Amino acid sequence: MARLLVTLGDPAGIGPEVLLSSLTQPSSLTRLRIIGDLSFLRAAARRLRLNVPWSRYEWTDLPNAGSVRPGRPGKPSGRAATAYLAEAVRILKRGEAEALVTGPVSKEAIAGAGIRWRGHTEYLAEQFRCKTTMMFITGRFRVSLVTTHWAIRDLPGRLTRAEVARVLEATRRALIRDFGIRRPRIGLAALNPHGGEGGMFGGEEKRVLLPAARKVSGVTGPLPVDSLMQAATRGEYDAVVAIYHDQALIPVKLLGWERAVNVTLGLPFVRTSPVHGTAFDIAGRGTADASSMRAAIRLALELAARRC
Amino acid sequence: MARLLVTLGDPAGIGPEVLLSSLTQPSSLTRLRIIGDLSFLRAAARRLRLNVPWSRYEWTDLPNAGSVRPGRPGKPSGRAATAYLAEAVRILKRGEAEALVTGPVSKEAIAGAGIRWRGHTEYLAEQFRCKTTMMFITGRFRVSLVTTHWAIRDLPGRLTRAEVARVLEATRRALIRDFGIRRPRIGLAALNPHGGEGGMFGGEEKRVLLPAARKVSGVTGPLPVDSLMQAATRGEYDAVVAIYHDQALIPVKLLGWERAVNVTLGLPFVRTSPVHGTAFDIAGRGTADASSMRAAIRLALELAARRC
Repeated sequence: MARLLVTLGDPAGIGPEVLLSSLTQPSSLTRLRIIGDLSFLRAAARRLRLNVPWSRYEWTDLPNAGSVRPGRPGKPSGRAATAYLAEAVRILKRGEAEALVTGPVSKEAIAGAGIRWRGHTEYLAEQFRCKTTMMFITGRFRVSLVTTHWAIRDLPGRLTRAEVARVLEATRRALIRDFGIRRPRIGLAALNPHGGEGGMFGGEEKRVLLPAARKVSGVTGPLPVDSLMQAATRGEYDAVVAIYHDQALIPVKLLGWERAVNVTLGLPFVRTSPVHGTAFDIAGRGTADASSMRAAIRLALELAARRC
Repeated sequence: MARLLVTLGDPAGIGPEVLLSSLTQPSSLTRLRIIGDLSFLRAAARRLRLNVPWSRYEWTDLPNAGSVRPGRPGKPSGRAATAYLAEAVRILKRGEAEALVTGPVSKEAIAGAGIRWRGHTEYLAEQFRCKTTMMFITGRFRVSLVTTHWAIRDLPGRLTRAEVARVLEATRRALIRDFGIRRPRIGLAALNPHGGEGGMFGGEEKRVLLPAARKVSGVTGPLPVDSLMQAATRGEYDAVVAIYHDQALIPVKLLGWERAVNVTLGLPFVRTSPVHGTAFDIAGRGTADASSMRAAIRLALELAARRC
């Protein structure tokens, strides 16, 4: 039985309520261990009238959010959020879990507490000395990204064959090992419109993308990204590899952002997270949509099951 | 009553069959004048068993496709296609029509006939000495493009405030005059992920896009394009202005490519066209989907009605 860890995220955000809401419908197929402030969570559940079957789960209680109020991030909430994550890393390093689901944290709150922070994924990559790849999933649509937060200006010059091939290979391995797809079909996105139209509008397809695609089996492309995304939604590919952020995020947002999940490939364990942030502005009201957190837990369970 | 011209396009392509299929369901609200080879069309209708109410339409018969066979493009088909278009331009210049729907032509077939050809839109822009803007529409979703076939590499350096403002203004004018929207809400796409995140990943938002957006009323943005497209599909904007090809075409393909229409803004008449090409590989079989041509005729009629 797969062992899943879930971190609470910033206690001042919507992390607690979407997590508690997800816990009201327990799955019997997994052992879930939640890392957070238990009395803070019990109080939140009471306030939101959520009926959580507490004894069905394991808890790592870090009583550090006593002073935190929903919608009021600050040093205490930032510090608490990183403590949950550090504890999760310790447990994962001891080999006591196969998967991690992370609740949303706030860069500002963590920085405000004087802690250096570049992001969840960067932190995990550093802790486990792994190169990671970001994948988004909504329904049957899966897309991983060669680059994430790059200016468009930097793309043509900095894109390398090696990096594109690495992301293709990471995607392929994940599809086989974690998603149980024996012969994955991967579509590689082109950078330029019409895939560069034979070099007329940009040469990156021929110079960088095609050689990378040839290195990894099961890869088709580079293909004009508009048609590729359409084909992928029809089920013609098991995953798309996008070159840049908006190529990936436009389809994910249109196809179902509310139930989308972020997956980090390349770590020695399964890691998923909801796609939303802390949403401090609506925290504590019980109006936050828990679909993405629920999907993140469900997917982590599904993927981790193949690792045991 | 609006007067619409329709050109047949390349007679060897699917233009004739999608046009004939559209003509089987006549609209009483318009005067449709088809420019093509009438006996060629009659033969095609017989072969495809399409019941066309011929007398409901006006015809400009150019008997120039006698030797053309479906799926066999060449000099005769290329020459014929440009003749229909040239005739349409003459009629439009005489002010005898308010709208033009163009059937698909083949760049290769036209070039093969020794005729210089850069594209339908370019030809019309040259003939009427207008700056044009390309818009795609599917359902309620409308997007116009600042650039079309540019390499990604060229975007950051060549994007200008003046050109972005021109496209915003052209879009605004079209929404008011042609679409009858009194106070249009336009969303301007950012170039970079997260809209550049305050300059962290690219400065074009602040330097080029924001000043352009401020020049035109009713414009919001620049906005991160993934969220913008999602908001637009929820009806929060009457149109999106995209910076480059794939920003616009990914959503259009996902939201309904088969019924999408291409609209050329900025001409002294309404111009629409189906989004597909000549599709020589399936021409003559009667299997081509006529939805886009039907939508192009319907939209041209709707827009032209506001010009009379």
